[in-house]
Amino acid sequence: MKIRVHVSLKPGVLDPQGRAVHHALEGLGFAGVDDVRVGRMIELDVANDTSDDALTEMCEKLLANTVIENYRIEKVG
Amino acid sequence: MKIRVHVSLKPGVLDPQGRAVHHALEGLGFAGVDDVRVGRMIELDVANDTSDDALTEMCEKLLANTVIENYRIEKVG
Repeated sequence: MKIRVHVSLKPGVLDPQGRAVHHALEGLGFAGVDDVRVGRMIELDVANDTSDDALTEMCEKLLANTVIENYRIEKVG
Repeated sequence: MKIRVHVSLKPGVLDPQGRAVHHALEGLGFAGVDDVRVGRMIELDVANDTSDDALTEMCEKLLANTVIENYRIEKVG
């Protein structure tokens, strides 16, 4: 079973990586870019019998830093 | 206008970050994880009149390394 975990910084948390990308886009002459936020997308191939609890536990323990990040589990197929 | 750019390694390209996450999940006792791939998700707030060509150019020039990465542009709202 294919799972996608979308990890993004919580609103209000400073995103230096996003700032750097924003700055670089402006440097390349792209106008009209108001904000940039960079997150992670982790694709997992797991056994079909993997429980939702196990997936949540993977996120809480390793895949996301829940102090500053939100995560969303998407079942792809 | 909110845009999401999903950047992921091309199939066949070695993913050391994914390997490390995979190894760590196994170390934490999570069985049944066959493969892990890590990608980026970049959220852009851009002016509503930003053209598709400009978005593609942002990806080609900066947001993705098209030698080893694929990208997908998603218009969110």
